Amino acid sequence: MEILKEAMRSILKHVEGVVDSLDPGEVNAMIDCLLNAKKVFVYGAGRSGLVAKAFAMRLMHLGINVYVIGEILNPAIEEEDCLVTISGSGETISIVNAARIAKNAKAKITAITSYPNSTLGKIADYVVVVKGRTKLEGEKDFLMRQIKGEHYSLAPLGTLFEVSALIFLDGLIVELMTRLGITEEQMRVRHATIE
Amino acid sequence: MEILKEAMRSILKHVEGVVDSLDPGEVNAMIDCLLNAKKVFVYGAGRSGLVAKAFAMRLMHLGINVYVIGEILNPAIEEEDCLVTISGSGETISIVNAARIAKNAKAKITAITSYPNSTLGKIADYVVVVKGRTKLEGEKDFLMRQIKGEHYSLAPLGTLFEVSALIFLDGLIVELMTRLGITEEQMRVRHATIE
Amino acid sequence: MEILKEAMRSILKHVEGVVDSLDPGEVNAMIDCLLNAKKVFVYGAGRSGLVAKAFAMRLMHLGINVYVIGEILNPAIEEEDCLVTISGSGETISIVNAARIAKNAKAKITAITSYPNSTLGKIADYVVVVKGRTKLEGEKDFLMRQIKGEHYSLAPLGTLFEVSALIFLDGLIVELMTRLGITEEQMRVRHATIE
Amino acid sequence: MEILKEAMRSILKHVEGVVDSLDPGEVNAMIDCLLNAKKVFVYGAGRSGLVAKAFAMRLMHLGINVYVIGEILNPAIEEEDCLVTISGSGETISIVNAARIAKNAKAKITAITSYPNSTLGKIADYVVVVKGRTKLEGEKDFLMRQIKGEHYSLAPLGTLFEVSALIFLDGLIVELMTRLGITEEQMRVRHATIE
Repeated sequence: MEILKEAMRSILKHVEGVVDSLDPGEVNAMIDCLLNAKKVFVYGAGRSGLVAKAFAMRLMHLGINVYVIGEILNPAIEEEDCLVTISGSGETISIVNAARIAKNAKAKITAITSYPNSTLGKIADYVVVVKGRTKLEGEKDFLMRQIKGEHYSLAPLGTLFEVSALIFLDGLIVELMTRLGITEEQMRVRHATIE
Repeated sequence: MEILKEAMRSILKHVEGVVDSLDPGEVNAMIDCLLNAKKVFVYGAGRSGLVAKAFAMRLMHLGINVYVIGEILNPAIEEEDCLVTISGSGETISIVNAARIAKNAKAKITAITSYPNSTLGKIADYVVVVKGRTKLEGEKDFLMRQIKGEHYSLAPLGTLFEVSALIFLDGLIVELMTRLGITEEQMRVRHATIE
Repeated sequence: MEILKEAMRSILKHVEGVVDSLDPGEVNAMIDCLLNAKKVFVYGAGRSGLVAKAFAMRLMHLGINVYVIGEILNPAIEEEDCLVTISGSGETISIVNAARIAKNAKAKITAITSYPNSTLGKIADYVVVVKGRTKLEGEKDFLMRQIKGEHYSLAPLGTLFEVSALIFLDGLIVELMTRLGITEEQMRVRHATIE
Repeated sequence: MEILKEAMRSILKHVEGVVDSLDPGEVNAMIDCLLNAKKVFVYGAGRSGLVAKAFAMRLMHLGINVYVIGEILNPAIEEEDCLVTISGSGETISIVNAARIAKNAKAKITAITSYPNSTLGKIADYVVVVKGRTKLEGEKDFLMRQIKGEHYSLAPLGTLFEVSALIFLDGLIVELMTRLGITEEQMRVRHATIE
């Protein structure tokens, strides 16, 4: 249980750093992209894809016209649309390809990534940097534990980026609620009744 | 941006409380359920379903034989299996029904819920209480903001439970890594190469 | 290869029987349900769920406001909506429960099933009978083969119902195209460009 | 209703042609790929992706170790694995990219496509040609109807390929049942009990 609690606290500590490091200009550009779009598409692979879906559900609760790429119900992406991509490395092939197709269609692209200079970061019109594991100085100190001679990560693989992106996007939903004047009760009414 | 950051910090503050409130006995019983099972099934609805999938992917990286209920590839649940259900309220119909079917098959059931006395909590063999919104005293103080005469939640609907469950399960993965002696590198080798 | 071709021909033979047995009154009631709805929801479990999704994609191509239950993007079902359920037996628990919730919300329900007197059939406002395996007389004659002393089905489990439902719904899409005056080219323009 | 029935019969007529045109050598090579693999992966986009999932479920019922690319539970693809791709055009970007990754991993690739000379067809180790719309001579005669001055397709977009691929793969399952000596009853026991 000590390792479990230490791992949870390491994640929380990392996300606190993410809160501080968010760039208001980047976030406001993303908000404009979302609010000015005719349709919003979200896309991520693996666990980042789950984060994309969690965000999409809340956008729907806000009354925004949103689609998750990879799901069966998806219209064509068009010039007035906004594509939100989520990729820690910014190099996931399927996401980069989607961004290229969106670019050709003249849609606007927002990338949520730890690497603004990645392939995805360079294609995107707007980038929101969400720090993941490899971007924090001195990170190894607080993320690795030696147990019986083996080194264990307290947040393996993409965990830090994924959890940080989720909490950032949940915060963004609250920002959008206040800007759009939509209360929780109005969101509840839009929530699925069969699931 | 201030609302966004405040919302993120409210979520983090809540999860810190969850870390403190976790019951070691409950968590150890869940770990036994996972490690003694022939097959593990995970199940949640809506955003809790996304949390279930995020957990399942990591269990697979640990080499555990795991399935997500609702996906197309699912064998029959049997006596030596463990079903992990995730439901904040513990009353989600589809989850409760799944637990009943698992019970009839004599599989073991773990419920991750805020309400141990819910229908799901009572069916389950093991309960891990993860506090959600309504269980913290004085919660309204730090979760509601009045803006231009309207009250806004800093974590609408099931957000607090969902994020808490995700971080708890990510911590549990690290606990399992150290118990099973599986390093991050071994997990990386098992990670999907096409996604 | 002979068994493979024989199995394919058995399926085709079965679906030909389904074409003949379709009831125009039932189909027209379903079409009214679809065209008069504010939102259409489709729902099936397992392979019937895949058929539901295949149908939903084409409804979207026709410009109909459609959702797949179980997907992450789903609004609340309401009085002016139409729920299309697909269940060969008409007894799938999750589908029956969904129909009950839809009924309480006063939405209209269409059931595509082999059993009009099933639990689902009785809840539904409209039933379209699509024959599956167990409803054709003398079926065992053309569906079972004895090979080296073992009996093999040429269309195991729900295969006949699932394929029949898919082809029926693909035919229904063409019927809707001509009624709505929507050409293939107009559907192509609505097709996802990122997948 | 006449248009609906005519559309269904057009699909059936097309699939009959597919039965006749299947190449035994191609099919046997695919069967060897499936039966000699350590793990089988299936992959398709859009409605072809639904066909891939329908096939994967039945492979699981046969006891074959199978994964659907794009789902959350996916291990790395390796040298002894078999990737089954389904793409009518053979040019779907995501499928072609997956085939390239599989090729680099030295896995074997089977392509089910209407175009053996497509990009996918050329990457694949084995191709099974399943005819779709554009490959049948004189097809326009039996697939287009003029109604009130407009031309309507009796099987819009990829319908013919998708339904043909599904029925081919359902036939293939029966072929595998007889070769592996697995009865329907054994498959039923492996079927999901919670869905």
